[in-house]
Formats: sequence, structure tokens, C-alpha cells
Amino acid sequence: MSISPLARSAWIAVAFTISIAKAIADPLPSWNDTDAKDRIIDFIDMVTATESTKFVPTGDRIAVFDNDGTLWAEQPAYFQLLFAIDQLGEMAAEDPSILSTDALKAAAEGDMKALMAGGKEALLEVIKITHSGMSVNEFQADVTTWIATAKHPTTGLGFNQMTYQPMLELLRYLRDKGFTTYIVSGGGVYFMRAFTEVAYGIPNRQVIGSLGKTSYQMRNGIPTIMRDEGVAFIDDKEGKPVNIEQIIGQRPIFAAGNSDGDFAMLEWISAGTGPSLGMLVHHTDETREFAYDRNSHIGRLEKGLDEGPEMGWLIVDMEKDWARIYTGKR
Amino acid sequence: MSISPLARSAWIAVAFTISIAKAIADPLPSWNDTDAKDRIIDFIDMVTATESTKFVPTGDRIAVFDNDGTLWAEQPAYFQLLFAIDQLGEMAAEDPSILSTDALKAAAEGDMKALMAGGKEALLEVIKITHSGMSVNEFQADVTTWIATAKHPTTGLGFNQMTYQPMLELLRYLRDKGFTTYIVSGGGVYFMRAFTEVAYGIPNRQVIGSLGKTSYQMRNGIPTIMRDEGVAFIDDKEGKPVNIEQIIGQRPIFAAGNSDGDFAMLEWISAGTGPSLGMLVHHTDETREFAYDRNSHIGRLEKGLDEGPEMGWLIVDMEKDWARIYTGKR
Repeated sequence: MSISPLARSAWIAVAFTISIAKAIADPLPSWNDTDAKDRIIDFIDMVTATESTKFVPTGDRIAVFDNDGTLWAEQPAYFQLLFAIDQLGEMAAEDPSILSTDALKAAAEGDMKALMAGGKEALLEVIKITHSGMSVNEFQADVTTWIATAKHPTTGLGFNQMTYQPMLELLRYLRDKGFTTYIVSGGGVYFMRAFTEVAYGIPNRQVIGSLGKTSYQMRNGIPTIMRDEGVAFIDDKEGKPVNIEQIIGQRPIFAAGNSDGDFAMLEWISAGTGPSLGMLVHHTDETREFAYDRNSHIGRLEKGLDEGPEMGWLIVDMEKDWARIYTGKR
Repeated sequence: MSISPLARSAWIAVAFTISIAKAIADPLPSWNDTDAKDRIIDFIDMVTATESTKFVPTGDRIAVFDNDGTLWAEQPAYFQLLFAIDQLGEMAAEDPSILSTDALKAAAEGDMKALMAGGKEALLEVIKITHSGMSVNEFQADVTTWIATAKHPTTGLGFNQMTYQPMLELLRYLRDKGFTTYIVSGGGVYFMRAFTEVAYGIPNRQVIGSLGKTSYQMRNGIPTIMRDEGVAFIDDKEGKPVNIEQIIGQRPIFAAGNSDGDFAMLEWISAGTGPSLGMLVHHTDETREFAYDRNSHIGRLEKGLDEGPEMGWLIVDMEKDWARIYTGKR
């Protein structure tokens, strides 16, 4: 086919226009064209269009996200626990005497089954040894190294490649529409901050999580924040709205979670006087990710499935609603 | 004198230019032209000028301010305690039986001397009755009413008129230069948030303070954050850098305080690797405000005076450095 330069320019212009229109029309390219995507976009349009009767000013556009199972995967165990186990193995290689109990020995060998058999106490032993006795800076340097090198046991991906592409698009879209995005997670706040700014574009001050005790100490004449033993705050279940009020001091209008640990947080935002949207990510995709809900030992989702729809919450079906799962290729 | 329209326009243009130049040259009009003002402006210029070797990107421009004695007055007692005493009086008018101890009776009568004689325990009794057993919303509504109506015992000003004009100019100037301004105060976080956004232009999420225990409860079917008895965190002394790391997660480059309760916070920001400025407001003006330091029962400043200058901290002399004290006219 022969084509004149003028016609060619016109074609390029048309193609360019279509591409722009598509970019504007589809801020969530990794979401399939299902009701879930429509509801999210409709909500954001409703609260941001200046002519809307439900318009919310930017200062009040607060969005909160759980992390484990909502922004990145959480199977076969919370990634923070996998970090602790790897860390314990490294520490034991240098000084085997730290493995003073059967639970610690099992953990250092990566024997999850034996570790889990020890229950909560065994896990706390592992956390105590790997999460205290160093400065916050030293701890975060270890996490950064681990994130950059460790691989997930079943996918073989780096852990920061197992963040969910559709959720990252949602975070960006919300920020682009004037929202301030927060993480409100049961995970440790110092653990998360070692990767959350790079992975999600969320600065440290917007990362809220569970908190170990810390203290201000002079170490070799240098002021240092040290990680001490013991828990200061568990940011889970009712702790989530409590922490939101303590730290943010204002009620979010959007909240996303994936388990019953997020129920109170979604309930809290839904009880506001203005518009709000609560969202639960339902892990339904055994092929591309993991499938679990009511009977899972991690990320159990039962109350949210039973009562969420009645509360007006959006239940996202990962298998049906997401065109792609991980940010990392697989 | 007759003046041509052209000459008149020229004059107006000149006058306008001078007025702009002055506005740019003096971002702190209530500060006298002393070294203190020069040091503040030089520091801000140094970290914000793009050609500066000490340039700090906006994301790292964090400034933290103590509240009592730094942003507003704190004599003859912390204003939050004056609120608690007024509140107790109102509660006792409705139900005198709540005054079950001598300390509470003294407080309700405004007998500060007898109250202080009861020591810390007496104060905690007053705080317990006035700061727990209601929702955060209800508590903040009480504070808002009090701030709008109560008068300071010696100045007769409203308490929100006893904020310091020079410090408000500094807050504005910092924000104008890309800083994020935080309050990090020993005062109660829910108490402060009832007025800090209006008084200082600082949103709730940037107000950090001491924290009473709270819980998430269903009250008449409505999710509610309740104030419970007991203290969750004291944001004073070493608690300040600990809380800064917990909540902000990054080291500020500017900190202002007025007492030894701020020493650790200033020490922490001064130990950063980049440029920083610590500042202590020294209460030297008995005529226009209050004069106190080493021997004061409130806002004691001794270590800061002794060691601050060596640390490079700016000691602001209220009498000499401030042309005006309160935002409210007196």
C-alpha cells in the first residue's frame, strides 16, 4: 500500500489520540473490565469531580491499605517471618549457641512444620532474637539486603516482585487524584519501611504498623534508636482503627484489606458521615497465586465475606478481576 | 503638587516594587533584626537554594516543634491542666459526688497551690476524671468549646491568642520553603488536635504528642474510639526522638523547643549527617510574657542553656529577639 505523507501524518495523529484517550480511560490496566474496576473508578470520580454532590476536598482524601495479602503476597507464611528465619540461619552460622531451644533449631533449619508446632511462643522466640538488640538502622539494613537477594520458596521471585500490580496501579491512581495513601498493617513498621517507599511510593511517615519497643540511647557517643525486646503495639483488628485515630487523626474514606484482621478498619471508615469505599481482596486464584479464605491459618477471611457485601464493601475476586497478579514477571 | 498620569504610574510601580522587595526580604516581621533572625534565615536559605552545597530535597525538609512554651505560653500551668481544672469544675457542678478526694476538691475550686501539694498523683486523678470515659470526639468538642470561651488567669486573653506570633511566622516561612511542619509535644495529642490546625496550620496527622489509652468499641451500634484510663505513651525527653522515629520514620533537620524536655529531640536532629538547626526559646521577658529557666517548675531549661551553644543550637532571647509576643493583642 502506498500512502501519502499527509495521510501518514493524519494516521499517526489519530493513533496518538486513541492512545491518549485509552490512557485516560484506563487508569487500571491490570484490572479486567469487570464490576470491581467500575466501582473503584466510579467511587474515585464521585469524590473528586468538583461538580459532584459527594465531592471530598484533597485534605480529606485519605486511603489506607493493609499490606500482607493486600499489597503483596503472604503465603506460605508472612514474608516478615521468612525474613526472620533466614536471619536466624545467618546468625546461627556465626554463633550456633544462639539456637538454645528446639523451636529455634527448627526455625534455623527452615523446618516450618516443627516451628509452627511450637505455636505463638516459638514464633516470639524467633522474633525476639532477630528483631531486637540492634539499632533500627542496622535492622533496616538487614531487611534491605534480604529483600534484594532472597527468593520466595515456591515462586522463585524476589519478595518485592510479589507485590500486586493491580494494587500498585490503584495506589498511583488514588495519589494522582489527590489522595494521600497510607499503609496500616499488622507487619512491623521498621520492617516495612525498608522497602515500602521504593515498592509502593509511600513515604515512611505514611507507613503504620505493629511496633516493637525502642529506646533512645547513646552508643559510643552517638544518639541511637535501639530495638528492645517486647511489643509496643499490635496493629491488627481493633488496633487498626485505634492506630488510625492516634496517628492520622482523621477518618479515611477508602480502605483496602484482605482478611478479618481488616474488618474493624473497614467498619470504621464505613461509619463516617460522607462517602466511603471499603474493599477486600479475595484470594481466589490457585493457579496464578494462592486460594484461601475461611479456613486459612494466614489471612483468614470469613466475617468479611459474610457481612462485607451488606456493608457495601467491594469484594475483589483475584481470579476474575485481575488480568495480572505480580509486578514481577513469572 | 501636580503630577502627570505617567509619573504617577511610575511612582506606583516603584512603591509596589519596594513593597514586594520588603516582603521577600522579611519573612519574619515580628522578629527583631538580631543574630537569631539572621541565623534562621541563613539556615533556611542554605538548605533550600538549589545551587547550595547543603541543599536538602523537599521530602527531607522535616521541621519539628514542641508546643507548650514553644508555640504558645505555658504559665502559670500547662494550659491542658487549666482545661482539666475548668472541666472538673463543670462536671462537679452537675454531680458534686465526683469530688471524692481532697485533691479533686482543691482542683475544682481552682486552688492550684493545694492541688500541687498533692503532687503527681493528685494531677493524675484530675486527668483521669477529665480525660477518660468519653469518646475522642466528645473530648475534642469539650476542648474546642473551652478554647473558644476560657480566658487566661493573668493576661485575660483567650488561650489560642497566646500563641507566639514570631513562631507562627516561622512555621509559615518553613512551609513556604517546602518544609513539612510537625508538632512533637508532651501535651496530649487529642487535646492539641482540637486547635492546632486552626492555630498553626498543622493538620492532625502532623501532630504528635502524649497519648492516653483508647479502644475501639460499638456504642449504640456505632463504631467509636473511646478514651480509656491510663497512659499509652509520654512524648517527652527521650520519648520525643523515639516517637519521631516511630511515627515520622525520618530524622528532621530543624527542631525547636524551650525546655530540657526537648534536649534529646534537638540532640537527635543534630546527630544527623546533613545540615540541621536546633533552636531553644528562652523565656526572658517578664514584662511582656514570663521569665523562667533553671529553677522553674514548668519548662525547666538548664542543660539546654549549658550545652546548647556548644551543640550549635540557637538560643532565642524572647525579650531581645522578638518584636511581638502573642498573636492576640494585649
